[in-house]
Amino acid sequence: MNFICTKTELQEAISIAQKAITGKSSMPILNGLLITTCKNQIKLTGSDIDLSIETKINAEIKEEGSVVVDSRLFGEIIRKLPNDNINISTTENNSIEIICQKSKFNLIHMNAEDFPEIPNINENIIFLIPQKILKDMIKSTIFAAAQDETRPILTGILFEIKDKKLNLVALDGYRLALKSEYLNTENIINAVIPEKTLSEVSKILEDNDKNVNITFTPNHILFNLDNTKIISRLLEGEFIKYNSIIPDEFNLQVTAKREELLSCIERASLMAKDSNTNLIKLEIEENNMIITSNSQLGMVREELNILLQGDTLKIAFNSKYLIDVLKIMDEEEIIMKFSSSVSPCVIKNKDKDNCTYLVLPVRLLNN
Amino acid sequence: MNFICTKTELQEAISIAQKAITGKSSMPILNGLLITTCKNQIKLTGSDIDLSIETKINAEIKEEGSVVVDSRLFGEIIRKLPNDNINISTTENNSIEIICQKSKFNLIHMNAEDFPEIPNINENIIFLIPQKILKDMIKSTIFAAAQDETRPILTGILFEIKDKKLNLVALDGYRLALKSEYLNTENIINAVIPEKTLSEVSKILEDNDKNVNITFTPNHILFNLDNTKIISRLLEGEFIKYNSIIPDEFNLQVTAKREELLSCIERASLMAKDSNTNLIKLEIEENNMIITSNSQLGMVREELNILLQGDTLKIAFNSKYLIDVLKIMDEEEIIMKFSSSVSPCVIKNKDKDNCTYLVLPVRLLNN
Repeated sequence: MNFICTKTELQEAISIAQKAITGKSSMPILNGLLITTCKNQIKLTGSDIDLSIETKINAEIKEEGSVVVDSRLFGEIIRKLPNDNINISTTENNSIEIICQKSKFNLIHMNAEDFPEIPNINENIIFLIPQKILKDMIKSTIFAAAQDETRPILTGILFEIKDKKLNLVALDGYRLALKSEYLNTENIINAVIPEKTLSEVSKILEDNDKNVNITFTPNHILFNLDNTKIISRLLEGEFIKYNSIIPDEFNLQVTAKREELLSCIERASLMAKDSNTNLIKLEIEENNMIITSNSQLGMVREELNILLQGDTLKIAFNSKYLIDVLKIMDEEEIIMKFSSSVSPCVIKNKDKDNCTYLVLPVRLLNN
Repeated sequence: MNFICTKTELQEAISIAQKAITGKSSMPILNGLLITTCKNQIKLTGSDIDLSIETKINAEIKEEGSVVVDSRLFGEIIRKLPNDNINISTTENNSIEIICQKSKFNLIHMNAEDFPEIPNINENIIFLIPQKILKDMIKSTIFAAAQDETRPILTGILFEIKDKKLNLVALDGYRLALKSEYLNTENIINAVIPEKTLSEVSKILEDNDKNVNITFTPNHILFNLDNTKIISRLLEGEFIKYNSIIPDEFNLQVTAKREELLSCIERASLMAKDSNTNLIKLEIEENNMIITSNSQLGMVREELNILLQGDTLKIAFNSKYLIDVLKIMDEEEIIMKFSSSVSPCVIKNKDKDNCTYLVLPVRLLNN
């Protein structure tokens, strides 16, 4: 193997392919980056078996071949090299030689044959969605995925395609996040993607209108962006029928300024931090919401103007769940709908109806 | 106690006084911030006994008094409040009430009498030095102070005033840093300041020409900046006679571009990271310096143009010590002076002669 490429492109490609590598594997080959030549380009691949990322850059190929190098060390070396052309070639003793200006590195490599095979995916049926829209959909839902593994399916995010819509859904037993966008397709898909995959995908997606192509197989999803392919296994099993969880009738509806409400809850939660429950209490009155919290350290009372339609209510929450939602939403005004102090609260934007958040209240003994 | 002040000033003052608080104390009072009213002002004091910081801001005092509040929680509350006037007053049940717009906090307080006494320092003899010069002197030397406590005196930095100069000196047995600046005084002082104190002082000092007043007592140093006073105990004992360590005769002198040399050494050290010694080898030839390093992972060879006066030399270093020095220096060209592969290397700026760095080489068996 022998090729020349630019430092800038190589550094960028390493940082993309590295996103699949957890760095925690006890198998050295999984901490490695596969470098393969392919006419006029080199391909870098990182993989932790569940998730693989491959990306291509232009290169002048002098001799074909492929090797695996330690991802972290190779990345650090390239990053520290001067901004110029880099020549990389295999030498004897299972090494590669990296030459850039007057710098010369010899680095032990591993064998390309030992690298895990990347699933070959037939891109027959593809869905197109602008990068920035998918990026936003992931950001709007990923925080609600379950962190613990008691129900593994909930550690993933549901990709549901039906009725010309793509719905992303995450839920963890305490809260739910649903974001929907138009998708020009008659197909129907139900797939659950690991949270780790989408977290890395959202870092690679750019804030622009260029499309990302998505392909599903029974076991895998492929995100195809120009020079980069991200392939992930799907989670096995059936996702929860989320529609049956979201109530559609309510006894009261509150309209509030999102940032003001967020500030009040964040301050109230400072006192609640003492305990694990982050407990805050909401008293919803005619034109006011009063938020209180107390602990051994003291107490806090916040008050904000709201618009109430329907009954008054006293209800308690884990403040973290409300803060997560209010931080991620982007409209100036939001709507909260309630039925009772023991029923879920549904939060939506006041204007655009493309997201739904649900938070379960905390049941108080003396309510 | 009852006063009104602005959120911005209070937040700024908390962040200054908090710098004395380690947050690790098992005595709750040492995690506390002392608030004291004094005509038209309030004074905030943080202390870990060795180091105390007090700072004043304007306030409308309605009732005099003093309390101690948990520094972290109080700081977080003030930071999250709206940008407006804040009213703080004592209430029953050992609490203070914090009111800002529609937010109301009640916070348990501790007793001001339990707060450690801050040494009262007679400011008879003061030394004046511009803030940015002292800040730079600290930054230029502090990294060389000893981290381990085997010789406690070396965990501090020597403040030596003599011959109308202030010298700051740090050394840890492997390297030494000395920075000197003119000081308009006939006095002679020798005091060793704990590294932690100077680290916090340098964060509070600003990058401007305003003077900081420095006062010494046999056991303490006081830095006085307008509204803020920083009082620290001195380390006990005699500092090492650093002048006898710095050689004044050499067999060769190298002139090199600082940033280029730094880049070469940083790259070479990537291969050296495998071991604890960060070992790199320098071959100093007529117009070239060749830097090499190797480990189980591979090897590296760097080459840079230099100007050599004197003999050629092969010498080895812990790369970390050279990197620390080259990063902190600011001139484009530097000078390195050597005598042999087992004698210290002295590094200076090519032009301005106000700093001296010394690094001990690593002795190689097969040199």
